[in-house]
Amino acid sequence: MAGTLYGIGVGPGDPELMTLKAKRLIDECPVLAVPVKAEGEKSTAFEIVRPVVDLSKKKVLEVIFSMSKNSSDYWKCGQVAGDQIIEELENGNDVAIVTLGDVSIYSTYMYLEQYVRNKGYNTVIIPGIPSFCSGAALAGIPLTLGNEGLAIVPSAKDNPLVGEAIDRFDNIVIMKAGNSVEKIANMMKRRNVPAECATIIHNVGMEDQYIGPIDTDRKYGYFTTIIIKKGKKDW
Amino acid sequence: MAGTLYGIGVGPGDPELMTLKAKRLIDECPVLAVPVKAEGEKSTAFEIVRPVVDLSKKKVLEVIFSMSKNSSDYWKCGQVAGDQIIEELENGNDVAIVTLGDVSIYSTYMYLEQYVRNKGYNTVIIPGIPSFCSGAALAGIPLTLGNEGLAIVPSAKDNPLVGEAIDRFDNIVIMKAGNSVEKIANMMKRRNVPAECATIIHNVGMEDQYIGPIDTDRKYGYFTTIIIKKGKKDW
Repeated sequence: MAGTLYGIGVGPGDPELMTLKAKRLIDECPVLAVPVKAEGEKSTAFEIVRPVVDLSKKKVLEVIFSMSKNSSDYWKCGQVAGDQIIEELENGNDVAIVTLGDVSIYSTYMYLEQYVRNKGYNTVIIPGIPSFCSGAALAGIPLTLGNEGLAIVPSAKDNPLVGEAIDRFDNIVIMKAGNSVEKIANMMKRRNVPAECATIIHNVGMEDQYIGPIDTDRKYGYFTTIIIKKGKKDW
Repeated sequence: MAGTLYGIGVGPGDPELMTLKAKRLIDECPVLAVPVKAEGEKSTAFEIVRPVVDLSKKKVLEVIFSMSKNSSDYWKCGQVAGDQIIEELENGNDVAIVTLGDVSIYSTYMYLEQYVRNKGYNTVIIPGIPSFCSGAALAGIPLTLGNEGLAIVPSAKDNPLVGEAIDRFDNIVIMKAGNSVEKIANMMKRRNVPAECATIIHNVGMEDQYIGPIDTDRKYGYFTTIIIKKGKKDW
């Protein structure tokens, strides 16, 4: 009988923010697939699980997830990685594959999942803690309350949705905002949203972690999220 | 020395979707606070943790979280519950309080948290798996990919934001949608969004769980989420 593929969200970085189910399934699966940007590169998701799972009797299978901006590249990568994984499933091995944060939020794993599922194999998705939930927790603010809405937008770079989200929503999460902090500050200004309504969440758990108000003099990396909360003065 | 208050998201229902940190902190804290709608009522969050934590040496403290629609009631409840908890903190006891899903997503716990924090006590928030991430995982669909946005709106009842979210976003999560399934189906129709783009997630883990397309002949309860995904035909 063919094995099952488990697509596992391992959360935003702290190994303890993995779920009990994620840990159990990774422990039980004989094969652990880890996505890397290119051959031999480090896998952030793998580094998260490493301290809490026993790797001694496990086969670790590197698969490549392109960081391209082109969705046809995602499908292609999904197919190549999918064929690697199907070989293991055909040998009767269950395979756990780890992805950063939650599986349903901007994860290219979903392309691979669909390829493997369409080939008739059993696939199961295990949700993980999204980075914005962890960021809000660290900042001590609610993302959304009562009858408010929440908009999640991927980046402010050339994305008209960001302005519309700030116009219409009480709460806005802007992911991958590192290269557009100043732009976002200006967008808020033009819309009379006070600068104090923004919280920057930068490199959580790393040495240069920063959680605080917008500071345009700082350098921000890829893992930068901005939470705009119009009702922030009440928190 | 006063104790610390841990506000812990325990996820959407499956006890195994608690994080390792949630379980550890609940195990370690001598006091477990459980929110109930009214005295003597069952706490959903408590039922989730019950199978995985040892309650034998723990004090369980019931606190009341109003289900009112009025935010001033939330502040009042937060204050009353906060004072109960502060009594424990003053005795040097750490207190864990459990909330359904994630703490930052529509959790009235945040009112209590702010009250206790403003009184000078140490508070820590532990994020949990939001119900919509778990719903997307069960439905096998990505909530958001590439450059897409995601809008989360609380309910379709008298909320103009729902229509705007459907107009502007590729992906929309409508929470507490049980009493407005037909209304949402009509809103989609008027906007030429095919009915097949919607997935209903109803009572996950319960006997009458339903995950599938909109079916207006069914009865839906409080824990009904609709995910509208305009690109769903590709999944």
